[in-house]
Amino acid sequence: MQLAIGLFDGMTSLDAIGPFTVLASLPDTDVVFVAERAGVVTDDRGLGLVAHASFADVEAPDVIVVPGGIVTHRMVRDGHPVIDWIRAVHPTTTWTTSACTGALLLAAAGVLQGVEATTHWTAHGKLATLGARPVDERVVERGKVITSAGVSAGIDMALTLAARLADEETAQRIQLSIEYDPQPPFSAGSPATAPPAVVEAARSRSAEFLRHVLAD
Amino acid sequence: MQLAIGLFDGMTSLDAIGPFTVLASLPDTDVVFVAERAGVVTDDRGLGLVAHASFADVEAPDVIVVPGGIVTHRMVRDGHPVIDWIRAVHPTTTWTTSACTGALLLAAAGVLQGVEATTHWTAHGKLATLGARPVDERVVERGKVITSAGVSAGIDMALTLAARLADEETAQRIQLSIEYDPQPPFSAGSPATAPPAVVEAARSRSAEFLRHVLAD
Repeated sequence: MQLAIGLFDGMTSLDAIGPFTVLASLPDTDVVFVAERAGVVTDDRGLGLVAHASFADVEAPDVIVVPGGIVTHRMVRDGHPVIDWIRAVHPTTTWTTSACTGALLLAAAGVLQGVEATTHWTAHGKLATLGARPVDERVVERGKVITSAGVSAGIDMALTLAARLADEETAQRIQLSIEYDPQPPFSAGSPATAPPAVVEAARSRSAEFLRHVLAD
Repeated sequence: MQLAIGLFDGMTSLDAIGPFTVLASLPDTDVVFVAERAGVVTDDRGLGLVAHASFADVEAPDVIVVPGGIVTHRMVRDGHPVIDWIRAVHPTTTWTTSACTGALLLAAAGVLQGVEATTHWTAHGKLATLGARPVDERVVERGKVITSAGVSAGIDMALTLAARLADEETAQRIQLSIEYDPQPPFSAGSPATAPPAVVEAARSRSAEFLRHVLAD
């Protein structure tokens, strides 16, 4: 099985690395990081990740994982090669998946027209304007498309997918190997549980980043 | 504040990227990925990450994060520049931290002599042979040293540290921004909750990797 993870400048690395860590642990899995060009892609916090191949080189992956980042808002406005790649490979994938605002890229590629999907909590409105039907769940599986909520939700998505690709025992073995027994020190991981002042601070910071990204 | 994340070939990327994603979101934080040499380091699943600087270039970071990987077992046996770097910078850090078997590297650098610490569940015995006192907790804070359990526990560790470095509201805002409201699809994240057959499969696979790594 070939698993292709689509990279682009300004992405959030954890969106990709969470699912990667889970899915690259599956047996008989060939992982390829792919981008506009092979070579270094720089994430939204300054980390460089190396793409093994270009989008043109990976024409028929079995599974794709698309990460997000605030920059996706600009990409869906202006177009981007990763969107063209998703559109080209989706018809022949067995699974098409996203973490966080990677769902906006799936939507811009036409994958989510009228389809229930999720994304980062601040981007549900944007997802709807792109033709998807936002659902307030952490992982949404519809047919061969699995979308997940913000950043860290990609880990939950990938464990769900690992059970589909292999079996539950294999997925559980991977969960144990990454000791995914989460114990967040605070109950602030969703707008439903975080204190209102924290939700407001996060929303305001996200809006500020968005203005900055769209002004570029 | 300078945050330095120590990289090495064979590391588990998620050990580094979880804490990185949380801590790089703190205000006034300069993040540097550091390795034996600036340039590409390849992780245990084939991903290349770019180190910005060499260990020699980063002499007095305020905070260090040390990831793990099965390869750490060989590194503590044979020695490695990252261990020398930890030994050199630890006296002047404000926080010295690890994810997963990064704790073995801290221990080999002399940071954990007689100190309570945690690591990946398969490595508690090894941690004890290196002079630390293994504790069965997800995040262990003792003085300025914070260790965490396997792989994904680095996220919990980093949120704890974010609250120390800034304040709880800031840590909660970051938790919400990465939507860290975990909903693992299975209860298999710790040897205490995983089905016995899954624990045995994970233990056996880990032992096989370890034999392979130590034979190199």
